Parts: sequence; structure tokens; C-alpha cells
Amino acid sequence: MPKPTPKAIVLLSGGLDSTTTLAIARDQGFDVHAMTFRYGQRHEVEIEAARRVAKRFEVRDHVVVEIDLRVFGGSALTGDLDVPKGRSEEEMAGRIPVTYVPARNTIFLSYALAWAEVLPAADVFIGVNAVDYSGYPDCRPEFIAAYQRMANLATRLGVEGQEAEDGLTIHTPLSALSKAEIVRWGLQLGIDYSQTTTCYDPSPEGAACGECDACVLRLRGFAENGMDDPASYRQRSSPLT
Amino acid sequence: MPKPTPKAIVLLSGGLDSTTTLAIARDQGFDVHAMTFRYGQRHEVEIEAARRVAKRFEVRDHVVVEIDLRVFGGSALTGDLDVPKGRSEEEMAGRIPVTYVPARNTIFLSYALAWAEVLPAADVFIGVNAVDYSGYPDCRPEFIAAYQRMANLATRLGVEGQEAEDGLTIHTPLSALSKAEIVRWGLQLGIDYSQTTTCYDPSPEGAACGECDACVLRLRGFAENGMDDPASYRQRSSPLT
Repeated sequence: MPKPTPKAIVLLSGGLDSTTTLAIARDQGFDVHAMTFRYGQRHEVEIEAARRVAKRFEVRDHVVVEIDLRVFGGSALTGDLDVPKGRSEEEMAGRIPVTYVPARNTIFLSYALAWAEVLPAADVFIGVNAVDYSGYPDCRPEFIAAYQRMANLATRLGVEGQEAEDGLTIHTPLSALSKAEIVRWGLQLGIDYSQTTTCYDPSPEGAACGECDACVLRLRGFAENGMDDPASYRQRSSPLT
Repeated sequence: MPKPTPKAIVLLSGGLDSTTTLAIARDQGFDVHAMTFRYGQRHEVEIEAARRVAKRFEVRDHVVVEIDLRVFGGSALTGDLDVPKGRSEEEMAGRIPVTYVPARNTIFLSYALAWAEVLPAADVFIGVNAVDYSGYPDCRPEFIAAYQRMANLATRLGVEGQEAEDGLTIHTPLSALSKAEIVRWGLQLGIDYSQTTTCYDPSPEGAACGECDACVLRLRGFAENGMDDPASYRQRSSPLT
């Protein structure tokens, strides 16, 4: 009898990184269950992008979880502060940006853990990146490692699993990659990046601003592969200069 | 200048344990910020009990966070399975009960972490108990320790804090106590336990069933202090026999 296809949960925002992560999970043979959060962020276009990606990759299931992080305030992405524009990569580096949402990845992974326990699934994929987003504490490898350890004490997976390999594994395939390397891998996997939304401040129609940190990094990732980003922009920074 | 009163977040369900935990945090001199979750549980009366408790103890702030755990299914407390009744404590011991909500405390603590980061607060209180509820993986001290370690890597608190004491501490004052000891401590702190709701299956008016695991343990806690539980019951098991 063939071994059943292992289930994996993939956190999917509809952006470049999470879409690439989903394609990687599929390519590695996982039965993908995608999870997207509507968390009071300004851009509903993210949710639509996530739906397109989930459909395109024919995931087994896709849940959109409603959570309200606005009750706590404290982040540009939840509407309290302005998104910074036109910053150089030096300006982005080394400090926690205002676009950081307090404990966001911790909350997202906790919902993924709940779903993993119910399915059950022993694998969770998250598209964190420790290179470009070094200012986000919850993208660091040491955070992911500590989360995985906690998760294996939190649930049935850890209590009832007799062997270490029965526990939960958090996969971060993009963690050590540059944006250019992520784009290259995704193109090899057949991703149509025109379907993804990365911008922190898109127009209601989904056009990217071209100037926020996320746009600057994304445009450079494509430029370093010698190509234009196929996504829609209101204007573009000049990543090649 | 007097030192400012330190802020603490207290997870408050409106039950016996979390109410006692809140009273302890107040007694220890914290400026209490209470956090309650509406998570698709059957019993709205829990939320009302939490509001009464928060008002009675004059907390600084009380947020009720809407979260939907039903999307995942898999627990009696979220409506999928029947609440077991009339079990002995031997029957409760050693297995994860169906009233276990997947990853619940992990999710609750993640929201508390987000709020702690925004306030900021360096202290979170949760009324987990490792004695009576040994079947819940996310009530164990090793889980709490792993969560605290993860939390201190997840947030600004861990990145920007220069000293260990600047990080987040998760307090579990009830962890090693019996239900009788918890009741005794709470009575000393002036808690009116008629205002609290513990039952897994209360009537719409808030009367406890008297037969679920939570009722059995609670009734015994009062009986061992030689008194009746002042809460309203539809019927009572006979804890003294």
C-alpha cells in the first residue's frame, strides 16, 4: 500500500515569500492546507491574492481566519502609524520597523498549531526570512527553534507522540535566502508572481506603491534576476541604480 | 518619586482559577489588565462572569478578544463532542480529555504577548494548574517554561531588553496547588466565588451542571474547606462521599 501523502499547513499571505513557500511545500510532496489571516490589515487585496494562489496550486483546503489585532494597536500594518517610504536598505537594517505587528508570527503559528493538531499534520511551513527582514524578531531562526520546542510540549503531538519524528516540524525554507534567490526558486517552480501582493500600502485595486520596504526589496529581487517584476505598481523605485 | 505600579496582563475566563489568579496579581501589587476570549465556546455566561470579576476587582482595562476556534473543530468545548459527565478523578487522570481545546493556551498566551508588547507589560498571569488538569498538555510547567523562552525571542521585549529581568515573565501561581488550596487562598483575598463560572456545560442562565470534570473538582475544593460552593448548580455531585 502506498504511504499516504503527508499533510502540511502553509501560512499564506498571498505575498511573494509565502507563495514561494507554498510552492516549495507542494514540490516536496506535501498535501497542502493553506491558512490565511484577516487581521485588520489595511489591504484586503492580500486576501484576494492568497485565494488566487491557493486555487492556482490546488491546495487541499484553505481557511481564512478572522483575527483582530487592532484591539492592541502599535503597528503601521494595523492602521496606527504611517508606512515608511523610500528607505534605503541601510535604513531598514538593524531596527524593528513600525510595520512590525506585535507578536504576529507567534499568533499565526499558534493557529497553525491548533489546525495541525486537529488534522493531524506534523509539518508547518512559514515563509520567514532572516536576511532581508533582520529587524523582525519573530523571523529569526532562534525564534522558530524555540517555537517548535514549545509547540511540541503544547499539544497532543508532543504528549502522545512516542518518537521525536512524530512531533511538529516548522519548515522555513526561505530563511537563509536573498530575495533574488527566492524569486529564482519560485520561477523554477512555475509561480506567476503577477498574482502575488507584497506591498505594505497597496491601492484599493491592488497596485503596489513601489516605495515601501517590501516593494524596494521585491523589485531588487527581480532586478538581480535580470527581469521586471510582473506585478502591478503605481510607480517603481529604481533598484538597478 | 514613587516607582510606577508594574502592569500585568491576566488571562481571565471568569472561572474559579483565573479569578483567583487575578486576585493574586492584584494582591502582589500589579496594575491589572484583564484579557478574556470569546472563542466559540458554548457558554456565553463565562464572558459575563469575567466582566463581573473585572469590575469587582477594578482592573485598569479589560479586553474581550473574539477568536474563532470552531474553524478547526476537535473539542467538546467548541461544540463538536459531548462533555463527559460523572467521571471519577481516576477516570479524569492521565489522558487528554475531549474538553481539551487544541492549542488553546498557546493561542491565548500569544494574544497576551501581543498586548504585553504594546502596553508594554513584562508580566503575564495565567491560572493553569498542573495537579487537577494533568491531562492538558498546555497546563504543564514545562510548557509554560518553553513558552516564556519563546516569547522572549519573539518580541521587542526580548530584542531590546538589555537585561534578563526586562524580559517577559509568565506567572502561574496556581500551578502546584490543589483545588482546595486555591479556594482557600481566594477566600483569603476576598473573592466572592458565587460570581464565578467553572462548568463546562452550564445552563443558559449560568447554572452549573454539577457533573462535568470541572464541577466535580470545584465542588470537592469547597468541600475540603468544609463549606458549600456558593455558585448556582442544577444539581450537585456528592464530593464528600
